[in-house]
Amino acid sequence: MEKTSFLYFSIIFFIVFFIFSSSFYPLSKPEFVGSSSRCTKLISSISETNQVHKPTPDHDHKNSTPCHPLDPLTIQEINKIRDILSLYAPFASSFPAIHSLSLDEPDKNQVLAWKKGDPLPPRKAFVVAVSNNKSHTLTVDLDSGQVTEDTVHTGSGYPTLSLDDILAAVQVTLADADFNESVINRGVALSDLQCITPSAGWYGQDEENGRVIKVQCFSNEGTPNFYMRPIEGLTVTVDLDRRKVVKISSTGRGIPVPKGTNTDYRYHAAPEKKPLNPISIEQPKGPSFSVEDGHIVKWANWEFHIKADQRAGLVISRAMVRDSETSELRSVMYKGFSSELFVPYMDLDESWYFKTYMDAGEFGLGVTALPLMPLNDCPRHSYYMDGVFVAADGEPFVQPNMICLFERYAGDISWRHSELPLTGFQIREVRPKVTLVARMAASVGNYDYIFDWEFQTDGLIRIKVGLSGMLMVKGTPHENMNQVPDQDEMTGTLVSKNVIGVVHDHFITFHLDMDIDDRANNSFVEVNLVKEENLTGKSPRKSYLKTKRRVAKTEKDAQIKFKLYDPSEFHVINPSRRSHLGNPAGYKVVPGGTAASLLDHDDPPQRRSAFTNNQIWVTPYNRTEQWAGGLFTYQSRGDDTLAVWSERNRPIENTDIVLWYTLGFHHIPCQEDFPVMPTVSSSFDLKPVNFFESNPILGAAPTFEKDLPTCKLTDS
Amino acid sequence: MEKTSFLYFSIIFFIVFFIFSSSFYPLSKPEFVGSSSRCTKLISSISETNQVHKPTPDHDHKNSTPCHPLDPLTIQEINKIRDILSLYAPFASSFPAIHSLSLDEPDKNQVLAWKKGDPLPPRKAFVVAVSNNKSHTLTVDLDSGQVTEDTVHTGSGYPTLSLDDILAAVQVTLADADFNESVINRGVALSDLQCITPSAGWYGQDEENGRVIKVQCFSNEGTPNFYMRPIEGLTVTVDLDRRKVVKISSTGRGIPVPKGTNTDYRYHAAPEKKPLNPISIEQPKGPSFSVEDGHIVKWANWEFHIKADQRAGLVISRAMVRDSETSELRSVMYKGFSSELFVPYMDLDESWYFKTYMDAGEFGLGVTALPLMPLNDCPRHSYYMDGVFVAADGEPFVQPNMICLFERYAGDISWRHSELPLTGFQIREVRPKVTLVARMAASVGNYDYIFDWEFQTDGLIRIKVGLSGMLMVKGTPHENMNQVPDQDEMTGTLVSKNVIGVVHDHFITFHLDMDIDDRANNSFVEVNLVKEENLTGKSPRKSYLKTKRRVAKTEKDAQIKFKLYDPSEFHVINPSRRSHLGNPAGYKVVPGGTAASLLDHDDPPQRRSAFTNNQIWVTPYNRTEQWAGGLFTYQSRGDDTLAVWSERNRPIENTDIVLWYTLGFHHIPCQEDFPVMPTVSSSFDLKPVNFFESNPILGAAPTFEKDLPTCKLTDS
Repeated sequence: MEKTSFLYFSIIFFIVFFIFSSSFYPLSKPEFVGSSSRCTKLISSISETNQVHKPTPDHDHKNSTPCHPLDPLTIQEINKIRDILSLYAPFASSFPAIHSLSLDEPDKNQVLAWKKGDPLPPRKAFVVAVSNNKSHTLTVDLDSGQVTEDTVHTGSGYPTLSLDDILAAVQVTLADADFNESVINRGVALSDLQCITPSAGWYGQDEENGRVIKVQCFSNEGTPNFYMRPIEGLTVTVDLDRRKVVKISSTGRGIPVPKGTNTDYRYHAAPEKKPLNPISIEQPKGPSFSVEDGHIVKWANWEFHIKADQRAGLVISRAMVRDSETSELRSVMYKGFSSELFVPYMDLDESWYFKTYMDAGEFGLGVTALPLMPLNDCPRHSYYMDGVFVAADGEPFVQPNMICLFERYAGDISWRHSELPLTGFQIREVRPKVTLVARMAASVGNYDYIFDWEFQTDGLIRIKVGLSGMLMVKGTPHENMNQVPDQDEMTGTLVSKNVIGVVHDHFITFHLDMDIDDRANNSFVEVNLVKEENLTGKSPRKSYLKTKRRVAKTEKDAQIKFKLYDPSEFHVINPSRRSHLGNPAGYKVVPGGTAASLLDHDDPPQRRSAFTNNQIWVTPYNRTEQWAGGLFTYQSRGDDTLAVWSERNRPIENTDIVLWYTLGFHHIPCQEDFPVMPTVSSSFDLKPVNFFESNPILGAAPTFEKDLPTCKLTDS
Repeated sequence: MEKTSFLYFSIIFFIVFFIFSSSFYPLSKPEFVGSSSRCTKLISSISETNQVHKPTPDHDHKNSTPCHPLDPLTIQEINKIRDILSLYAPFASSFPAIHSLSLDEPDKNQVLAWKKGDPLPPRKAFVVAVSNNKSHTLTVDLDSGQVTEDTVHTGSGYPTLSLDDILAAVQVTLADADFNESVINRGVALSDLQCITPSAGWYGQDEENGRVIKVQCFSNEGTPNFYMRPIEGLTVTVDLDRRKVVKISSTGRGIPVPKGTNTDYRYHAAPEKKPLNPISIEQPKGPSFSVEDGHIVKWANWEFHIKADQRAGLVISRAMVRDSETSELRSVMYKGFSSELFVPYMDLDESWYFKTYMDAGEFGLGVTALPLMPLNDCPRHSYYMDGVFVAADGEPFVQPNMICLFERYAGDISWRHSELPLTGFQIREVRPKVTLVARMAASVGNYDYIFDWEFQTDGLIRIKVGLSGMLMVKGTPHENMNQVPDQDEMTGTLVSKNVIGVVHDHFITFHLDMDIDDRANNSFVEVNLVKEENLTGKSPRKSYLKTKRRVAKTEKDAQIKFKLYDPSEFHVINPSRRSHLGNPAGYKVVPGGTAASLLDHDDPPQRRSAFTNNQIWVTPYNRTEQWAGGLFTYQSRGDDTLAVWSERNRPIENTDIVLWYTLGFHHIPCQEDFPVMPTVSSSFDLKPVNFFESNPILGAAPTFEKDLPTCKLTDS
């Protein structure tokens, strides 16, 4: 979900504006240095870092240089790009608003061919900039110092909102006399106002003439948890390009602003529970992973590239696992990230119908991923990484401690077997499970999304999304269910006096560019489990299940809806890479609990988020098809989604393919979600299937007492 | 899956027999002491126990006394029952074979009325014994020293196998000349034989004249992992009552016994991987839970009774959670346990069709739950509990360290919220998640089932089942897929040379006697999410989701199949217990990934396991309806299953109800499952829904550095 929110007083407003335009962390502007000579020395000494338990990123961002073709733009590079754009003739009169500025990744073949020590492929930036109300997509070549491509976007949709957009929307709202009168009439002091900016969605011709956004406000009187104190029914529509209020909708005047009692969730504000005894994951020798050159993670049999992205958040690239027999590093996934996040609310009211957020494309999952809180967001021995992002004015800023990496031991079992003593074998063989987690938490306004990429030594990757933060709530005149005349007409649950938690969904669509052993020669196979009736009369059994393999020839063959009573496994295989036994190497996607979008396919939000029409899609690799809702998601009309691409029905057999998986949640709120929600999570797995010759962790060691640390209380 | 397996040499055989008949741990026979005077002193000092990191149960079983109405029978009680049965006239000529002997739990009302310090309700035992080929169910009253009920079972099915049955089946097989000749003809030395005893299932009239069992054998030459070396097609049918071989089926003579190369999974036998740095969950002050009187667990806001059961394994009773506002202990669940485990294999061959195990009722999940391995099965600071079970001769034996309890911190987040700095609030509030896990691992022959009951401070209970151990494999002449003439006809995956991992399912059905606040006044509500078309023209949205609540009136209303495109939440509520807001207190069952049984409903194994025809059932409480496949599961015909009970369509509204949930897995094996399977797990949750007035862990404390221990390597 949604929106960023805001302070009333114009003085504070301008302070905030200044902070943002100059970045979270003020930075001086060093000269650009093209050399990557420092790269090989940048192996992070995790053990040392963690012995002192300080989440100090080891990067000197001002002087950092790219070391890998996929490394994000550095501060020096961003500054140089800003200079290049400043000198670019079409922008001579005024610097454009930067809505996106990130590495234009080299061609996949270049990346795959690159080896450590090779010179980097040419560094380029992909920029989305708005100038004179036109959206440009530009390619900037850092070596030549030139803008090499510049296309004006003509289709539907607008770029991701900038913070300037959000600030402007609130500013013009707060400056509107009618709005202020309406607020005062509802008994809310202007000094207590806190406003958020829900995206407007797209609902037909009324909204096709420019960028619009909604502004809704809350009272923060007596609580920082203003989300629980909505001024219900007061919705302002702002034209973002003209920077003016175009509509004020004021309904629901009989609905009081909820009181906000017991909504403060800050430590010491809430009555404290008796704490549990201290507990922590301890690693006296430090973690077993290393981070080389700032982005290459090496752990157990895994190696991958990790980076922060302003839109996607956390991006895993070049994930490779070591073969358990040959020790060869084998490709599993070229790139994996959360491509879009669709959150439709289920209320048709004037103040609610448009709440159908596409958080990645409209707001950005990386830019809202605030610093992780050590010991609480991530365990003690975590390693933290920063993001380096770009503000609307083209200035770089650092998003500190945005990603953490840690080894997890949760008391789980990797594999086990005990023999009953009567076999004569006295066997109790058990291996504990230790995994590596890469985590990010995006606070997209009220909601917090925790993204985990968990790597297992058995080759499995678990991708988990946790939801916490605040409900998006609706004011109601009712304080008790017995006052509700028709409970069937409620669009949510009464979660506190005068507060309804409105029913909504969350769909997170992942782009998973699987490259099993090779970028080419990959195929998608549905292994269907089919009930067969036994008609032979040769067995007393009447039925059994049989697997039927179906290789997807074209995209439509791979538009998959899960069926409990017609189940399948879904494999990405490399038919050219066979095991000793002749089985093709593969990975399967293993769904966990999920939910499907049920909205009408012609409903505008569902058209825009048609990528949620299936749980799985497979497309041929196309470097422009990264964002499931389209590059220009804001107010898009659904003409550039994954669903549209897939409808072209391109061949996907024995080629370079991308798997798309949507993880879904239906959320019917309950009182326990008030005033802050206990985390709800769900996950799916990418699991090797005949990829290894046999169990790759057969030789894993058990834990022995002698290996474990001696611990004592720190204050004793 | 299933079966228990065996040694050839008769000398060793008799040694084993002796060990079993006299119990795993030889015990002297102390006098029975009826007093419970020691109970109040039996508070386990977990912290101390764990400071020395020894999994030493603190129970002196010989002298233990029951302290709670639900406490399992003690050794003294079991011995007394044996004496009573010995003196029981109908058994005067010979002591019967004991197939089950456990506490006959007092009436629920008696248990609910009991308070600590009250005298215990009369102690009784429920016994299933076979005498003269007749199955008796007996009630033994410990106070009067009398058998108070004795019913001869006349329906279909037989009691759970005893170890004597298994030993006898193998013994008569190994003594059979034709069998031995067949083994030798296949080139297997009799001294290398290892035999298992799959249950026979029930397939019509041929098998209705007595108890039969199958025996299949393997070679353990060169490996303890004999499961990977099947003597394919050689299946012996043994009449268990007459103790004789009734059929030898010998097919597949052209199929070699697989070689067993690289199948030894014992540490040091497999080439060792470079170990990861040591990692452990540390608790310098010890865990935060206590175990009172051996069975009452108190942790954070939870209190429950836990015990080991020979058939169900781990039983949780009287689970209560403290109200976050009133601190009142409130009932959530009266009793929860794994009631049955159905594992059908998907191969019609003479040697395979019958493999449709019902592991709880046929073999027992508790009796196969061997001692947990400290530091590997459970983390360092775990507390271990024993089971006290009964052998076929009525003698008690101790199943040591069968259950572990531990606090888990996995680096996860209980709840969190960060505010974007532009709101003016500098908020980063995060609470780490710490949970309490009760674990058991049943090794039912080749397969290992890890059962976790995880309690969260937010009121959620997660029930998780992990599968590990060995595949049940089938011999094949083929060493490579390119030798297979028709791959579509394979019933599984070639996982090693000459080894097929046969496709199969696992269904674990849980009995969940939910008592939300009260045993009475509970109802089951399906909260259906329905797509509504917007026909009003008042909103630009075309559709939205609406919740429709449907209270189940009778059992058939609560026969639930999950539907991704017609989704619902499933609540057990107490309409008499309303929150301040007027919402009924409830818990919902939240499915995770699952699978449905697809077999024909008329197929004999599916008739017997018809409890898997739905994912959820709700029945009115009936103390005799504990076992989803019927009390007499072995060779049952499906006439006493949950499905049969439910078909009576009894009222279930506003009464004492039991929720049944089936967790399912389809398992298409892959090479990674050879020779031992990495754990695959799935879970479901019981989650409070308007049970608490608000988030019960709002006041939870974050973790601070000062609370965490100082650790160093033990050898440094």
